[in-house]
Amino acid sequence: MAKSKFEYVKQFETEDRLLPNCWIVVRIDGKGFHRFSEQHNYIKPNDDRALDLMSKAAETVMEEFKDIVLGYGQSDEYSFVFKKSTNVYNRRASKLATNVVSLFASSFVYFWPRYFGTQMMQYPPAFDSRTVIYPTDKNLRDYLSWRQADCHINNLYNTCFWKLIQEKGLTPAQSQERLKGTMSSDKNELLYKEFEINYNNLSALHRKGTIIIRTPKQDQENGDLDILKLQLTPSGSSTARGGLSSRSPRPMTGGARSVKRSRPDIQRLHIDMIGEQFWTDFPEILDPPKR
Amino acid sequence: MAKSKFEYVKQFETEDRLLPNCWIVVRIDGKGFHRFSEQHNYIKPNDDRALDLMSKAAETVMEEFKDIVLGYGQSDEYSFVFKKSTNVYNRRASKLATNVVSLFASSFVYFWPRYFGTQMMQYPPAFDSRTVIYPTDKNLRDYLSWRQADCHINNLYNTCFWKLIQEKGLTPAQSQERLKGTMSSDKNELLYKEFEINYNNLSALHRKGTIIIRTPKQDQENGDLDILKLQLTPSGSSTARGGLSSRSPRPMTGGARSVKRSRPDIQRLHIDMIGEQFWTDFPEILDPPKR
Amino acid sequence: MAKSKFEYVKQFETEDRLLPNCWIVVRIDGKGFHRFSEQHNYIKPNDDRALDLMSKAAETVMEEFKDIVLGYGQSDEYSFVFKKSTNVYNRRASKLATNVVSLFASSFVYFWPRYFGTQMMQYPPAFDSRTVIYPTDKNLRDYLSWRQADCHINNLYNTCFWKLIQEKGLTPAQSQERLKGTMSSDKNELLYKEFEINYNNLSALHRKGTIIIRTPKQDQENGDLDILKLQLTPSGSSTARGGLSSRSPRPMTGGARSVKRSRPDIQRLHIDMIGEQFWTDFPEILDPPKR
Amino acid sequence: MAKSKFEYVKQFETEDRLLPNCWIVVRIDGKGFHRFSEQHNYIKPNDDRALDLMSKAAETVMEEFKDIVLGYGQSDEYSFVFKKSTNVYNRRASKLATNVVSLFASSFVYFWPRYFGTQMMQYPPAFDSRTVIYPTDKNLRDYLSWRQADCHINNLYNTCFWKLIQEKGLTPAQSQERLKGTMSSDKNELLYKEFEINYNNLSALHRKGTIIIRTPKQDQENGDLDILKLQLTPSGSSTARGGLSSRSPRPMTGGARSVKRSRPDIQRLHIDMIGEQFWTDFPEILDPPKR
Repeated sequence: MAKSKFEYVKQFETEDRLLPNCWIVVRIDGKGFHRFSEQHNYIKPNDDRALDLMSKAAETVMEEFKDIVLGYGQSDEYSFVFKKSTNVYNRRASKLATNVVSLFASSFVYFWPRYFGTQMMQYPPAFDSRTVIYPTDKNLRDYLSWRQADCHINNLYNTCFWKLIQEKGLTPAQSQERLKGTMSSDKNELLYKEFEINYNNLSALHRKGTIIIRTPKQDQENGDLDILKLQLTPSGSSTARGGLSSRSPRPMTGGARSVKRSRPDIQRLHIDMIGEQFWTDFPEILDPPKR
Repeated sequence: MAKSKFEYVKQFETEDRLLPNCWIVVRIDGKGFHRFSEQHNYIKPNDDRALDLMSKAAETVMEEFKDIVLGYGQSDEYSFVFKKSTNVYNRRASKLATNVVSLFASSFVYFWPRYFGTQMMQYPPAFDSRTVIYPTDKNLRDYLSWRQADCHINNLYNTCFWKLIQEKGLTPAQSQERLKGTMSSDKNELLYKEFEINYNNLSALHRKGTIIIRTPKQDQENGDLDILKLQLTPSGSSTARGGLSSRSPRPMTGGARSVKRSRPDIQRLHIDMIGEQFWTDFPEILDPPKR
Repeated sequence: MAKSKFEYVKQFETEDRLLPNCWIVVRIDGKGFHRFSEQHNYIKPNDDRALDLMSKAAETVMEEFKDIVLGYGQSDEYSFVFKKSTNVYNRRASKLATNVVSLFASSFVYFWPRYFGTQMMQYPPAFDSRTVIYPTDKNLRDYLSWRQADCHINNLYNTCFWKLIQEKGLTPAQSQERLKGTMSSDKNELLYKEFEINYNNLSALHRKGTIIIRTPKQDQENGDLDILKLQLTPSGSSTARGGLSSRSPRPMTGGARSVKRSRPDIQRLHIDMIGEQFWTDFPEILDPPKR
Repeated sequence: MAKSKFEYVKQFETEDRLLPNCWIVVRIDGKGFHRFSEQHNYIKPNDDRALDLMSKAAETVMEEFKDIVLGYGQSDEYSFVFKKSTNVYNRRASKLATNVVSLFASSFVYFWPRYFGTQMMQYPPAFDSRTVIYPTDKNLRDYLSWRQADCHINNLYNTCFWKLIQEKGLTPAQSQERLKGTMSSDKNELLYKEFEINYNNLSALHRKGTIIIRTPKQDQENGDLDILKLQLTPSGSSTARGGLSSRSPRPMTGGARSVKRSRPDIQRLHIDMIGEQFWTDFPEILDPPKR
């Protein structure tokens, strides 16, 4: 059987190496998760089980791909930032996008029971994935700001939308109509006046999304105790879990600033990435230690 | 919060539409499945549970993507052929590759218990995925012939390799040494002389891999009989073409020429695709009915 | 001086090989030729000097690139069709596009005096160039039909537009207004009624554009005399040169329907490519002899 | 004539926008210039007429494309650096590469007589062209250093090679043999000992190639004096940096530090770009004024 006779077809494959010296972002998005969330009775507007499962899947990806320096997730999407100098898969776009998304998807199903208990998954979900490259730190930060701003905008809207339905008895159509044309300030006021809710006191997990970063080595060595203490905080409720995290030399005093860590060297944060503080506190993200 | 200020980062995304009027092949490959198969005690050289699970995942993909006209799987890989005129995802390569692979991966985990019973999956697997386009029917057929020839070559080698280990007590290194430099005919003879095995009588699933095609609508209506007749017809290389499949946990007793169908409009075949017969028997693959 | 220290920058170059087994079209377009034609007093609506210069440049390209099987030009554009199996520059798109366009541009300037005599070129012109690939013969033919239909549509319009200006004294704006919304039939009638012109009798060069193909070898051997005879036809006037060329398999005897050939193995035609006849008459274009 | 029927073929064209916020380099290279230089009796090892013609063509390109901030040429190649923020042709790679190269090629022919006088061009030359993008200033500088280092290495070699032939009567093969395996220092010594030539005193045009930059507006206003002063300043490696240029048909006698300017806002330099000084002296190249 002439193997070589057919092998010419390999020549039809194309190379897709990403430009060197650029940040590589792989973003995955749930496909048809509106339906998926309905079929699986996701709690509205935010289902912490689902969000935690997403982050668990993201952590699995980050354990496998050590060159990912940051993950950011909200709703049914997750972004993974590979360091500029990564040479994983020789920087081939399709290899990166597909390995990441398939591991994410299989992890999502694999860990489902851990978060949804006896509620069975009805059917296996799909995700899409794309690679985008950014030449400068500023471009990368703006990308992450874009996603976090999107999280905020959607969460503010969804919080209002569902409050009107769940507590005021509006239909979805009525709720949508009520919110049409409103500004952020209008929605904040709505929440405050009609529901006595101060939006900024709501779960940081929901308002800020989830940042996953690696803990620098020194923290792991002399800092496990502190971390463990934080872990003792009653978790489960989003209020306890959510919160600014504190990792910086000048510890942020006060508040439920817990750090959630499912792996020794990985931590989840629910804090602002748009301002300067985050990048001052975690300089090693943009400037990863040479290995 | 200025959403628009950051949205410019979308401009860094690139378009990757595939050339119109070409066959699109999406091929997925298991990542690190040598280790995965060892960790999960795959039977050597072929584990029917694993092969059936792969095909079940492939069928799930084909149910979702109606423009796939043929799937072909062997070992830890599967190829999906989209019809030339497909406009799914506007023919965007990354969308196709990632949606297919993530659905495959999540299905692989989702259906695992159905094939592996109480044997737990140890960790979620990853797959990579690529798109390749072929301008002509001949190129596409050569692609499929390439994969089926690969299946044959590997299966013949692996059959010998494991027989020598399992029945003659050779070490893997000894077995490898024994086979070094042998031709196909040498291996056939080895199997016949030392193990009284006629290679061509071995499982068609293992020798030919698995082809998944859609059953034309009329076949569905007037039933399975036609299909069975077709398979029973002693037409040309019927022996070579006809293949038994065994996909369900409860093995199928009966007809060596049986056709397994898990969905009304999908069937699995374990027959030769390299010769003309297959394409004569199933002309609608290369010339799908207009919709 | 450390050469190697800087050579890493080569890694930023990307590969751009075109899909195998597809027709490659390189189309060049004059940049800003509206202005160029005005600055150089091009005759309106068609300047035969300019058209001949374009074709001369195109022939120079085709002498250099033997894998071009057909050139087609009209106005300030030229398309070159490389045979499907070409491996020139390893099918790298940028190499093909840039070598063709730069040779075209330098030839345009080089041969300018031959067509424009003592009228000096005022400034060097630029052209852009792109590669497009077509998987099937039908797609390629449709591409060429598209360009030839474009030639027809523009020439019919321009003929009317300039007749109204040159013979009826309309301003450009008036002429444009007069033609607004007219169909082809309206324009044909306009020409016939107001100018006693039968559009189909106008120069084939202008109506059909210029096709450049290679003369099959046998023609060269036993046919040079005939060809030379045709060359003796008084050229220069577009009427003599233009015209349907005789394109039947049985050699063209006589007639004003000359074939212009500046090179032994290249000929210019001004005939229809949209219908079947052309492709019947010149089967070797789509099916080039193996070399 | 159904125009729309064929227009679908436009869908086969692909988009090739270059990543935003990166430096774009378009490099053109003479095709087959070994032969071209022989056919046109180029003086060896360097023909100033040819080098000046190349630079004249480059300047023509830079007059057309205002977003080019720097040109660098040596031998039969020229590189053009577009500013990071350029939006020329919507950053489409093929548009940039082909417009630049075709204008360069047509200019090369157009201006030929100005530099080669009555010596006729034998045939029109071709050039290839490619786009490369660089995300950082360092990458861009390393690219330019790579080309200038290449210029140096080749010029040192060629100077030795031709001296041995022209003054010692060696054959090309003997000269090549004599130089095999020599280091830069060996070649410097060879020139000094055998030909009493101090390599560093040779023409900066030949040793450094030609840099073309734009003169900042304020310099244009308060005049050339500042520029001259700058060049005369014995700053750092002034010997190495300062270079004489000679571009016009009537060679410039005088000042070894002269700066030649054929256009009010463009100047040629023959100085080092590898060290820091150049970039300190011309900060506006990497940081172009906003317009």
